[in-house]
Amino acid sequence: MKKSISVSQQVVPCPVWVIGSYSKEGIPNLMTAGWCGVCCSVPSCIAVSLREATLTYENIMERKAFTVNLPSLQYISEADYVGMESGRNADKFSKLGLTAVNSEIVDAPYVAEFPLVLECKVLHTFKIGLHTQFIGEILDMKIEEMFLDDTGHVAIEALNPLVYIPQINAYHTLGGKVGQSYAIGNKHR
Amino acid sequence: MKKSISVSQQVVPCPVWVIGSYSKEGIPNLMTAGWCGVCCSVPSCIAVSLREATLTYENIMERKAFTVNLPSLQYISEADYVGMESGRNADKFSKLGLTAVNSEIVDAPYVAEFPLVLECKVLHTFKIGLHTQFIGEILDMKIEEMFLDDTGHVAIEALNPLVYIPQINAYHTLGGKVGQSYAIGNKHR
Repeated sequence: MKKSISVSQQVVPCPVWVIGSYSKEGIPNLMTAGWCGVCCSVPSCIAVSLREATLTYENIMERKAFTVNLPSLQYISEADYVGMESGRNADKFSKLGLTAVNSEIVDAPYVAEFPLVLECKVLHTFKIGLHTQFIGEILDMKIEEMFLDDTGHVAIEALNPLVYIPQINAYHTLGGKVGQSYAIGNKHR
Repeated sequence: MKKSISVSQQVVPCPVWVIGSYSKEGIPNLMTAGWCGVCCSVPSCIAVSLREATLTYENIMERKAFTVNLPSLQYISEADYVGMESGRNADKFSKLGLTAVNSEIVDAPYVAEFPLVLECKVLHTFKIGLHTQFIGEILDMKIEEMFLDDTGHVAIEALNPLVYIPQINAYHTLGGKVGQSYAIGNKHR
């Protein structure tokens, strides 16, 4: 029997993306976002939702660019910290001892130490309500070579990305592989 | 050293959401989406991106409503199948022996057997490129009581949702909890 629960319990595995941006003054900033996902294959786009109150919102509105930095499990406390502290009160890169690399492709910094980076140019902004969606076209994707397998694909288990469960505020790792898509469903055809 | 890889490798843990909709003729349909995520807290909204070629796109354009049905690991082959087969060629509910329940809140069906359901009304549609985003306001969220813990929160490990890794086409389970958000980052303050 199904029971209605609060709709604020968005019980979905969410990504843990650390968004890199420059302020008007050129100071690199980081902020963690969970309200995000892939939103288009052609062009390759992702959507990141931010509240207007955040410095990252202001920065991206100004610069029309951002990076997505995927933290591995190793950087869980850094990812959590940049989601709690405002860039208006702290220089988060310095505080964490992380290195801001200036993207050569978009007007935004990325985190040298994190294993995977997407460099994005803003195509659209859609105000939904408390949050505004930034639709970013992925212009390049960079990964530490040690996380590529022999076929040039991402070795996801080695990468060890975080997954976020809202409402219960829990970070999880990815579990084991349980099936291949476009394959395991064939038995129903 | 970071290396550029194809931007089509959207290496993010993506949700596995089975979208329920009615056709013009009132036939319930299901389709799996991975290009989706939460996009706003107030109102509580999610974004689901679909290609125009899909029946689900046509259905949602017509009915302005859909459901999100979260499959547990138990339903992995069903979730995969409805992502491969078009509702134009098969009655997927019948083929899978799943039960279509008519939502009393929105003009869409949901899957009785799946553990968790969001009932959504379309607030906006944004055409990005190959994909169009449907922004759905979550009007209700229903869960099987057995997946609620003593405090009324979702027992995520019991729910056992799937996570999708695009490009390598892999379904994973959720791994163990590795940290509490707004907590584990405090040491950097």
